[in-house]
This record gives sequence, C-alpha cells and structure tokens, in this order.
Amino acid sequence: MRETLDAIRPLDEEAMAAARARHDRLTKPAGSLGTLEELSIRLAGLAGTCPPPLPAPAAVAVFAGDHGVHAQGVSPWPQEVTVQMVANYLAGGAVINAFAREIGADVHVVDVGVATAIDDAPGLIQAKIRPGTADLATGPAMTLDEAQAAIETGIRVAGQLVGGGARILVAGDMGIANTTPAAALIAAFTGRDAGEVTGRGTGIDDHTHHHKIAVVRTALRRLPADAGPLRVLAEVGGLEHAAIAGFALGAAAHRVPLVLDGVNTVAGALAAAALHPGVTAALVAGHRSVEPGATAGLAHLGLEPLVDLRMRLGEGTGAVLALPIVSAAVRVLHDVATFDSAGVTEK
Amino acid sequence: MRETLDAIRPLDEEAMAAARARHDRLTKPAGSLGTLEELSIRLAGLAGTCPPPLPAPAAVAVFAGDHGVHAQGVSPWPQEVTVQMVANYLAGGAVINAFAREIGADVHVVDVGVATAIDDAPGLIQAKIRPGTADLATGPAMTLDEAQAAIETGIRVAGQLVGGGARILVAGDMGIANTTPAAALIAAFTGRDAGEVTGRGTGIDDHTHHHKIAVVRTALRRLPADAGPLRVLAEVGGLEHAAIAGFALGAAAHRVPLVLDGVNTVAGALAAAALHPGVTAALVAGHRSVEPGATAGLAHLGLEPLVDLRMRLGEGTGAVLALPIVSAAVRVLHDVATFDSAGVTEK
Repeated sequence: MRETLDAIRPLDEEAMAAARARHDRLTKPAGSLGTLEELSIRLAGLAGTCPPPLPAPAAVAVFAGDHGVHAQGVSPWPQEVTVQMVANYLAGGAVINAFAREIGADVHVVDVGVATAIDDAPGLIQAKIRPGTADLATGPAMTLDEAQAAIETGIRVAGQLVGGGARILVAGDMGIANTTPAAALIAAFTGRDAGEVTGRGTGIDDHTHHHKIAVVRTALRRLPADAGPLRVLAEVGGLEHAAIAGFALGAAAHRVPLVLDGVNTVAGALAAAALHPGVTAALVAGHRSVEPGATAGLAHLGLEPLVDLRMRLGEGTGAVLALPIVSAAVRVLHDVATFDSAGVTEK
Repeated sequence: MRETLDAIRPLDEEAMAAARARHDRLTKPAGSLGTLEELSIRLAGLAGTCPPPLPAPAAVAVFAGDHGVHAQGVSPWPQEVTVQMVANYLAGGAVINAFAREIGADVHVVDVGVATAIDDAPGLIQAKIRPGTADLATGPAMTLDEAQAAIETGIRVAGQLVGGGARILVAGDMGIANTTPAAALIAAFTGRDAGEVTGRGTGIDDHTHHHKIAVVRTALRRLPADAGPLRVLAEVGGLEHAAIAGFALGAAAHRVPLVLDGVNTVAGALAAAALHPGVTAALVAGHRSVEPGATAGLAHLGLEPLVDLRMRLGEGTGAVLALPIVSAAVRVLHDVATFDSAGVTEK
C-alpha cells in the first residue's frame, strides 16, 4: 500500500492550464459545456497531458462480500442473494451486465468476502479474505490485517485492469446488508450523525430503518475519536468497502479516472481519501444515489455527480451510465475545431 | 400536417402494464432504477409493445435559421456565425459532431432559414423557407404560410430519418439570436412573464439581458389572447422552432422517441404540444439547460430532464448525452434476467 500511496501525484497544473486555454479557442461559447469543461480540465490534470487520453476501454469491478450484521435484520433480503447475484453477473443477466453491454464496458466480479465458495468462472476474480465479516453490531467486523488485505486486493485489481488496457475504471458493489457498514463508514469519515447518512438500502420500512440507524450508532460508539482509516474500516466496514478504497488508490496511482457508483463505493472512496487525500483527483462521481449517505459522502469529497436518476441499485449501474458523458467531455478536447481552423467569427 | 396530427395515438396502456409487471420480476429491488423504470415503461407505451424496440440507431437533426431580431442587438455574435457553424457541422468539427461520434448518432443539418445560401453537402438537408425571419421586435417574424411550411418541413425530416432506419430522433438547433424567439414562444405557450423565461443565451451582460427581455415583452403584446399555435409561431417565433415543432409531431406520429435539447427545442416542443397535446408521449427531456425558459417549458410539458450538466450550447449536444441513458433503460426490459430464470431468492 505504501508504494501506491507514494505514487499518487497532485493534478498537473500545466496540463490543466493548457486544457483551459484550449476550451477558450474551441467553436462554442466559452463555458457553454458547463460541468463537462471542468471535468475534462481535471482529467487533463490527472493524466498530466492535454488532451488527456480518451477514457476507453472501461472496466467495471463489482466487489462482492457478505456481512455479519445481516443477523441484526437490517435487510429484508436473505444473505444467499449475494452469491446468487454474483452468479447472475457472471451469467450476464443483471442490470450491470445490460448497462455495460449497452455502453461498452467489461464487467469483472471480485469475491473479497462472499459467505460461500464460488466456482471459478470467466470474469470472476477470486480474492476472498474471509467468508463474510463478523457482526459489526457486536464487535469489529474484521481484523486490521484483513482490512489491509482487502485494500491490497483493490489496489491489485486496479493494476490488473489497467495492465489489461482499461483507461477508466468503474467501482461497483454487491453484498446483502452492505448499506449498513456503508452508513457507518460515511458517518465516521464525514463526522455526520448516523441518522443523517443511514438510508433505506434496497427498501425497508420505518421500523427496520430506525433499527438500522441504532445499529450504526452503537457500532460507531466503539470507535475511538482518533481512529485511523484502517481501524475504522476494520471496526465498522465491509470487505468490499476496503477493497474499493484500494481500487480508488490504485486508480489514482495509475492516473486513471475511477467512476464512483452509489453509497457503498462512496464509503470506500472516503476511506481512500482518509488514507491519501490526493485520491480525489482521480474520482468522478457517476451519479447521485437516493441514499442520503451517498450525497453526504460526495459533498465531503467535493464531488458533484454527473447524473441523478433516483437510482439505488448499486452494482456500478449508476456509474456506468456516466461513462459516455466522461468520454464526451474528453473527446471535445480531441476533436472540436477552433475558431481559426473552422473559420468561425468570434464575438 | 392534419394527417400527422391524426396519426398521433395515446400511450398503449396494455404495453405499459406489461412493462411494469416485467420490471417487478427482474433481478433488482423493485423501483431501484428510479427514473429509468418510468422512462422504459413510457417507451413501451409509445411503441405499443413490451419490450419496446431498442432506440438505435439515433439521428440528430440540427435545424438552422437566422433571425431578423438580431438587428436589435440581442446577441453579441455576428449573424454570419450561423452559416459558419453550419459549415462546421458539415465538416464534423463542432461539439455536436464530437458527441455524436462518441455516442453513436448521425448528424443532419436542416437549413430552414439561414440568411445566406449554403452549397449542397453530405448531411445537409436543403429546406430553406426564407433567408432568415423578419424582425419580431417590429412585426411578425414570418407569415402563417411560412410557419406552416416550416412545420411541414420538420414532419418531412422526421419521416425521412425514420424511413432511413432511425429509431430515436434528437432535435438540435443553430441560429444566432434564436434564444430571443425561443423565450417569446415559451412565454406565450406557458403564460409566464418574459422576465422569467428570457435567459442570457450564449452569454450577454445585464444591459443586453434587460434589453432582450424588453424586446420579448413588446413582441408578445402584439399577440391576441386567443392566438393559436401557428399564429404564435409566425408572430414571435423562428423557422427552426416551427420546424422542430413539426419534427416532434412527426416523431410522435411514427411512435419514435424524440430527445429534446435546450431552450430552442423546448420552445418548438411547446408549439407542437399546443398543436396536439399527445405529442408529449414521444418526448424525452435530454438535459436541463441553464436557460430559465428551458426549465419552465419542460415543467409545462411535464417532462423531467435526464441530465443536468449546466450546459447552454444547443446543437443537440445535451440531448445526445442522454441517448445512452435512454438505450440503457430500454435494454433492461430486453436483457435482464428474472428472479426465476436467474434462481435469485426474493425478499
């Protein structure tokens, strides 16, 4: 991990200045592409060159894990749905597969902590740290070593996908009950109250929602005020959150953008930012999930989501929808004619 | 036009019910795709079948025209920029071309009223009604016959593109000073005050903005309270707005979705909805432009934009960014496994 943290560089100011200057010469009113101009300028800074490389091909990594806290009744879904949905991803039948086919991205599933064993299959990365976390309501979800190993796994997967040619990464998640540790992580890293950042996940009633908030609040009380990011992850997190943190660090070290999805990937990103604040240079907020913790976390990271479609599915689905927008933003710096080259009069 | 209006059908309730039922069986929490579920259900209703056809290939039509009101100093750009930008589109050098290449769409330019003659070129549809409108500040922008002819042009272009295989249409616009007639049309069709719906277009200072509002307000005073849509278009509109109205009617008659872009396409859509309220079944709001009139017009049409990136370029650029989202929404109904077929346990 140390090597990865050391490789993270600040945005290249020279490349950003070049992108800004280029935008002002292109055949469009200055600033008329709004958010896309800022995004393309930042990606030039991340890559250290203007124009930055076109962000394709894209690789999605769905980090999957189970959660001991499921025993507290925080989700209406049985735990076995995690492994069943992993099988669905590998068979190409889930929404993330449909979106990735439509938009053009490869889907990889990383088992960092599913409760049951999964047979080898194309697209599956076997990296189980342990078969599900312990119940964070009653004690640490995992050991510090396990949290560290999950981070290292995320770093390794990022390296593997970039090594395989990916020029943009998408973080996704699967894990029944994982919005409970996500809420705990977001509360811990943003300093917000559990009640503000704990959502209804896949859809729970008021009673279960109150119980879920109480579980998060109780778990957070065990954390010392000065707990470092590794300790926070181990105490109240999930294996997929730790792996996503590593994935983000790996993307930043490779100067490749990482598109965040919903509340679970935001929780992982907050852990990554606590480990190295420079990681945010590589992070793109794909969408705004309806989970309140996602919005709180993105605000803490200083990121504004590209789309807002009231989604709450996870898997990387919201992030994948943002990929064409990111690509379009970068392509402007590659393809669009200048006032001079196109013979267009300026105001 | 009569034939086109008669061909517009209400949404097919049976197809929508089938899409709703299908969504509840797919391997995802019910409702977790938010806006995309509603959109895909509506597109099933538009097509009259579930699943609706995948909305591809996409064809963009950029309707171009000039405006006599340019003489009032409502835009900082010289009028010649309209024809120069048309040349830029035909050469593939504008932002709409870059976006369309990235996302996969053909770009067609329709000259409905550019002030100067344009040589034939691949991608150009010659359909000039007149070389720019008259100055709407001092009298009608065009005759009723001209407005009617522009609508017929839009209908014809929609038929031509659908006949050529397009399964989704995108409306774009180009015309220096065209946000002035757009604001007038939006005020007329929504009943809002000119001050509420007149924006800064490509970027004007406070003084010019106040002047622009005054121009719109003065023009609107000439309209009788009972003016029909054709009269409104002729009095205070632009040729591209009338053509976009026809384009929307044509799309609806062919049961093909039309993605709206910014304030000019919204103005055209409002005219279309005044001609036949059933047209809204086919309309998809691609993005939220920063122009206040766009938001007012979309609210009047009951449409919620898919993306909001603080853009204000026109050309169809915001609409094209929404195409992958529309396609992804439809693909869910085609590709995603059900709980039964994937062997996933339900809650």
